Amino acid sequence: MQLQGKKIIQLVHNDFEDLELWYPALYLRGEGATVDIIGEKRGKVYEGKHGVPVKTDYEFSDIDPSDYDAILVPGGWAPAKLRRFEEVKNMLRHMDESGKLIGIICHAGWVPISAGIINGREVTSTHAIKDDLINAGAQWKDEAVVVDNNLVSSRRPPDLPFYMKTFTEKLAG
Amino acid sequence: MQLQGKKIIQLVHNDFEDLELWYPALYLRGEGATVDIIGEKRGKVYEGKHGVPVKTDYEFSDIDPSDYDAILVPGGWAPAKLRRFEEVKNMLRHMDESGKLIGIICHAGWVPISAGIINGREVTSTHAIKDDLINAGAQWKDEAVVVDNNLVSSRRPPDLPFYMKTFTEKLAG
Repeated sequence: MQLQGKKIIQLVHNDFEDLELWYPALYLRGEGATVDIIGEKRGKVYEGKHGVPVKTDYEFSDIDPSDYDAILVPGGWAPAKLRRFEEVKNMLRHMDESGKLIGIICHAGWVPISAGIINGREVTSTHAIKDDLINAGAQWKDEAVVVDNNLVSSRRPPDLPFYMKTFTEKLAG
Repeated sequence: MQLQGKKIIQLVHNDFEDLELWYPALYLRGEGATVDIIGEKRGKVYEGKHGVPVKTDYEFSDIDPSDYDAILVPGGWAPAKLRRFEEVKNMLRHMDESGKLIGIICHAGWVPISAGIINGREVTSTHAIKDDLINAGAQWKDEAVVVDNNLVSSRRPPDLPFYMKTFTEKLAG
């Protein structure tokens, strides 16, 4: 229970990659963290791209990101939705400016691109968005987990166990 | 990496509970174990009840259960299929007689009922099959994880992190 007392934002929108939301949420809860599911609408059931459901605890405007210790963005198509919201981009910027942990996997990198926090950072992602990350100024690496200060990134579902071990170690401090 | 060198059978059939197969498979791989996905047909893609796919590494008759250290049965509707196969029931009996770890979650308890290894054991499960377990001679408990010697059981997806922590501890020895 290395994460007792830690509060984490898990962002969601339709067609998230099912395992990329649920593996981290369950794993971090198992380490004692509170993981709040945050989406456009409070109390709404969103479905993963394969169909696994998740219900939001809060909507974007309900929360104050300064109450949280870290933020996670899942992959799938959800990032293409999430990147359109000012509240989401502000959450990412707040986390980055405060040096709080940001976790991105697969297509999630689209959201920090739109938040303008990718320039000069080392990251990984699904191959599909490698060009978008490089064009935003990132140094892209093909590794299971890449850590650049407070930014932790992974490529795809088989990387999940290593992504979460690294994220937990960094968050536990 | 507490499970380096350990080999685990993860049984599958159609309509498995998506997270109850994938969370354990990823978690145990993250601890260094080899998790082989075993189903009726080799190289076949099975879909979870929500639609998350998984591809089998081997079919039942390809493997010798004595090569493995533990077996996992997922929930969902897959257990209602798996309990019909002699090979599956023999795997469970071999594991139990050898004192090797057996993990069951949610509806998975139907399989050890049909294998005839439930009488006198302490177990948990989804409420839906509580009566079946009691009628098979089990002592049913409403706890996140129940351990009876080599039999580890859990109720449902929110228990997954605690189920896997206990399973890993027991398997690491």
